[in-house]
Amino acid sequence: MSIPISVPQLIQKKRDEIPLSAEEIRFFVSGAVKGEIPDYQVSAFLMATYFTGMSFEETANLTRAMVETGEQYHHTLVKGPKVDKHSTGGIGDKVSLILAPLAAACGLKVPMMGGRGLGHTGGTIDKLEAIPGYRTVLEKEEFTKVLQDVGCSIISQSEKIAPADRKFYALRDVTATIESIPLITSSILSKKIAAGVNGLVMDIKVGNGAFIKSKTEAVNLAKTMRAVAKKSGMELRATLSNMDQPLGYAAGNALEVYECIEIMRNEMMNPYGLPSTDLKELTIHLTAQMLEVGKVVKNLSEGRKLATAKLKDGSAWVKFKAMVAAHGGDTKTLDEPWRYIQAEKIVELKANKKGYITEMHTEALGRLLITLGGGRNKVNEPIDHSVGIFFHKKLGSLMKADDTLVTIFAKNGTDLAAIENQIRESIKISSTKKMAPKLIMEANVK
Amino acid sequence: MSIPISVPQLIQKKRDEIPLSAEEIRFFVSGAVKGEIPDYQVSAFLMATYFTGMSFEETANLTRAMVETGEQYHHTLVKGPKVDKHSTGGIGDKVSLILAPLAAACGLKVPMMGGRGLGHTGGTIDKLEAIPGYRTVLEKEEFTKVLQDVGCSIISQSEKIAPADRKFYALRDVTATIESIPLITSSILSKKIAAGVNGLVMDIKVGNGAFIKSKTEAVNLAKTMRAVAKKSGMELRATLSNMDQPLGYAAGNALEVYECIEIMRNEMMNPYGLPSTDLKELTIHLTAQMLEVGKVVKNLSEGRKLATAKLKDGSAWVKFKAMVAAHGGDTKTLDEPWRYIQAEKIVELKANKKGYITEMHTEALGRLLITLGGGRNKVNEPIDHSVGIFFHKKLGSLMKADDTLVTIFAKNGTDLAAIENQIRESIKISSTKKMAPKLIMEANVK
Repeated sequence: MSIPISVPQLIQKKRDEIPLSAEEIRFFVSGAVKGEIPDYQVSAFLMATYFTGMSFEETANLTRAMVETGEQYHHTLVKGPKVDKHSTGGIGDKVSLILAPLAAACGLKVPMMGGRGLGHTGGTIDKLEAIPGYRTVLEKEEFTKVLQDVGCSIISQSEKIAPADRKFYALRDVTATIESIPLITSSILSKKIAAGVNGLVMDIKVGNGAFIKSKTEAVNLAKTMRAVAKKSGMELRATLSNMDQPLGYAAGNALEVYECIEIMRNEMMNPYGLPSTDLKELTIHLTAQMLEVGKVVKNLSEGRKLATAKLKDGSAWVKFKAMVAAHGGDTKTLDEPWRYIQAEKIVELKANKKGYITEMHTEALGRLLITLGGGRNKVNEPIDHSVGIFFHKKLGSLMKADDTLVTIFAKNGTDLAAIENQIRESIKISSTKKMAPKLIMEANVK
Repeated sequence: MSIPISVPQLIQKKRDEIPLSAEEIRFFVSGAVKGEIPDYQVSAFLMATYFTGMSFEETANLTRAMVETGEQYHHTLVKGPKVDKHSTGGIGDKVSLILAPLAAACGLKVPMMGGRGLGHTGGTIDKLEAIPGYRTVLEKEEFTKVLQDVGCSIISQSEKIAPADRKFYALRDVTATIESIPLITSSILSKKIAAGVNGLVMDIKVGNGAFIKSKTEAVNLAKTMRAVAKKSGMELRATLSNMDQPLGYAAGNALEVYECIEIMRNEMMNPYGLPSTDLKELTIHLTAQMLEVGKVVKNLSEGRKLATAKLKDGSAWVKFKAMVAAHGGDTKTLDEPWRYIQAEKIVELKANKKGYITEMHTEALGRLLITLGGGRNKVNEPIDHSVGIFFHKKLGSLMKADDTLVTIFAKNGTDLAAIENQIRESIKISSTKKMAPKLIMEANVK
């Protein structure tokens, strides 16, 4: 393919906010992936895009060009709407583990490619790997087969999907060009389109534990994603949900599986009597949106009813076990959930102070998981699935001084005094009550 | 050297318009030159700088850091103010060839490192190489010696000077980041400071044959350069001069040497009776500014008087011949200036139309030199010194149809019909007179 302009001219057009044609974008993306365009030109282009942005049209063309650089799944043999959910990442966000089997139980097909945790946020794949035997890497045919047989399959992002995204992401990560709405949009959508998804629900996290700190920014991303998805032939809904505190009570891979089992079994299992009200609320809402996107239901409220019923009657639990089995996971452990609470040291911290929780430094709490050994600063670092934290209190909770604030699950040799200090610094207890933030900040960004 | 932030954080600071410290800038520049910071991070930084700019303080620190990456000349044995002139480049701009010996004749020391032509603009070094034997590469000691003995020396940019600039320039050239005022400023000043110059006169060209098309932009560059030079301990004056038409009558390396000899000899030699009024005016003005910067004179008008006298009494001509001799050039050829009009084909084009010249597409005319073989599109392309164009008419000139418009000096085998077409397309003749632009648009940008 040849186009009439040179790479420097193409970068200059982007720099000067002159819209690029589909052909120019394809030339650039394909040249970058093939190594014909050197990285120093790619990163200059990415930085220019950071500053001048892209139209919906350009972003859709970028997305399409990125899809075309790799393998494309179509799951043509799989009947039914193929709908996925994507979250921008948070602490304790284990929604996918419940949502995928629940949506499948309601009649959707959920071909989900998950990510690993990096920095302060966790990843679905790490959580699933806390289940002994669960294989997160499946070839295309096997992935399709599980999808067909079970209705949902969660695997880790295939390397064959959208290689342009991996190339761009690696460069963005080291050139301060992560925070660009068209680049974020094309990164997410290219992978979903290539994975064979026709509908997508976005859970955009907003708050001090999220990458996106302001609602304005989140709405902007939601609107761009919706418009670009539409141009790409994909139906997309976006929810804004609060991330000023961890979601649910558990953070840490095995502990989060435990919390999910508890919800799917509809049984209070944890010895502290901690409820997962927020996690359940968000999971049902997002599942309902998926059902609406997939036209299984007529509207959101109908979707909520169906999802609530299928969670309550144990259908989601059955699907979850079937998915784990299909992936080679040891389902026996699921029936013995105490196996997921295996840390070498379990320590309860008292509040030591009477009052209300008015602030949680969620990102700092997420980083504590790395200190405990359950998260990573760099790609491919090994992690310990057993460690983590149970949060006994939520924003707005009233506590007595001898109430338990958190339970720490740690490895031998962990500097627990340092961990305790950091937790106390990260959770603010005040005598004045402050309104807790609303979990679902926008149920459906138009 | 270690600094507390990572390279991505440093790029992010620049991206977010947070001023960088001197230490951070030094770390970045030195890392880039040593190859410790990969090109893709350097180009992202350059693009971020293109968008957010730099304060005078940052630009001065960048300049200083770039100087420190290479050799520094001080010419400590050379007495007297060391003052240079730099032009942003134009067509027919042969000022340096006259100005350097003229300023030396007036008592300044002029250690000049010149460039080669690239794209539509010519370079002083190519012009000097039209003089048989003239060595444009001198080692530091020899350069200092010529400076001491003659008072001026023009050599090509030493590779040992400011390697950071070569690195950055090569990247800027292919990543659409040339047009950045702090990057242009630090590029020019770092080389001048490293070459041992204490005072600098900038000739900023504005017009359709210059890189800078608008006066606002030129004033902006001038003010930045002045402020940054001051912070770097260098006195700087800037002139804005018009480049909506070629300067003088000749374009082409040997032909330009011819025009300079004519001026320095104070003798009308060319058979067409073409005057070089504009070239002389600008040369005397810029020399006068140098004399003022070097405190040889009290003010500009005194400088103009001295420069005019030293040109008229033949002192500049004596200095020029001494400089050529010191560089190994054949001075005999200077006394036989017809040797510089040696093209294989010399063709005169008639105006073919009565009227006034109202427009000259100066950049296109500059590019014609490349077509003739006297300029280059890529670094290191060989060139033919003999080719070029004599422009018989200036903007505003009234012509009869049988007046000569230009004389073309070409090689055998040149497609003269195509050249003629392009010249006619590039020079607009109209029946309505239009005011010719003022040559010196700003005599001293404050």
